[in-house]
Amino acid sequence: MFFTRHSRPFKNANQEKAAQLLVTPSALADLSQADARTVVSSMALNKVKQGTVLIKEGEATHTDFMMLILDGEVLVDNEVTSMDDSVVMSIIGPGSLIGEMGVLDGSPRSATCTATTDLLVALLSREALLALIKQHPSVSARLVLAIAKRLSDHLREANRKIKTLGGLSRALQQELDAAHSTGSGRLGR
Amino acid sequence: MFFTRHSRPFKNANQEKAAQLLVTPSALADLSQADARTVVSSMALNKVKQGTVLIKEGEATHTDFMMLILDGEVLVDNEVTSMDDSVVMSIIGPGSLIGEMGVLDGSPRSATCTATTDLLVALLSREALLALIKQHPSVSARLVLAIAKRLSDHLREANRKIKTLGGLSRALQQELDAAHSTGSGRLGR
Repeated sequence: MFFTRHSRPFKNANQEKAAQLLVTPSALADLSQADARTVVSSMALNKVKQGTVLIKEGEATHTDFMMLILDGEVLVDNEVTSMDDSVVMSIIGPGSLIGEMGVLDGSPRSATCTATTDLLVALLSREALLALIKQHPSVSARLVLAIAKRLSDHLREANRKIKTLGGLSRALQQELDAAHSTGSGRLGR
Repeated sequence: MFFTRHSRPFKNANQEKAAQLLVTPSALADLSQADARTVVSSMALNKVKQGTVLIKEGEATHTDFMMLILDGEVLVDNEVTSMDDSVVMSIIGPGSLIGEMGVLDGSPRSATCTATTDLLVALLSREALLALIKQHPSVSARLVLAIAKRLSDHLREANRKIKTLGGLSRALQQELDAAHSTGSGRLGR
């Protein structure tokens, strides 16, 4: 799936909608409305058909962009969530960002995102971000700061999950040791 | 422990050393040497005694700064690493950054860092970062981009760890279920 990566004229209504959605808590709450309008002017509007895989976990090419969902819903899934039965896969909607690590460094994707409805999305490519840094450095600095804060939040969440899973593994290991010591001889250690 | 947060004159040799260390792979490799010099001019040089706790896990005040180690060694430890016997606690040295999430959003610290030798560190406060964004927006944009890339790396590493721990928990649970079904009646489910 190839997307339109370069800025092409949005209808005014869509530009304004994108600017408003970019500053919601699910995206980049720290950006001002004026900053958001400048960022949106570097984004490309894309219509996407239901069922399209927007980004794919592990994918290593065409990874250097992020997307803001303007309309429709996206299923986010990865190896981590799919192996944990307790995690309901996320459905995200208008005002959600996907792929923000890619726009920073173009590394392989960490999740798969699939359009569960027809979508309207605004795409910011890494090239567009680098051009924005040259043309509007202050706005860009605040944009990247807002993305970085979002990543900090994700990192804290991941650290909490590591603590929980580490504690769980330890408890299971202890229970297993106890089962072995009281259970049948062939399991004893 | 209170640090000098505001820029005070470094000796030229220390400024140059700080600028060189800021662009090493352990800190912010994507920054140019010229950018690094500008950033360093917003940093405050601090001498720190062996044994000092630089930042403390969970601490919620005085969290809005990051530090670049210029001389000496720091022990990094947190609840996650300390509960996992297989993880050797990290010792980091010159050219390493600590506290970069704090400078972005001032949230509680995610690790404890203790000086294991006398140290020389360069501190960048959040105030100084915000002032830098106003005065040198292009440099700041590239600085924050470099910090954000570092956070992306940490996040990917955390996701790998979650996968490993999730797989371990599942394997232990299966082994435990097997032990219960073949073991003594009182453990059976």
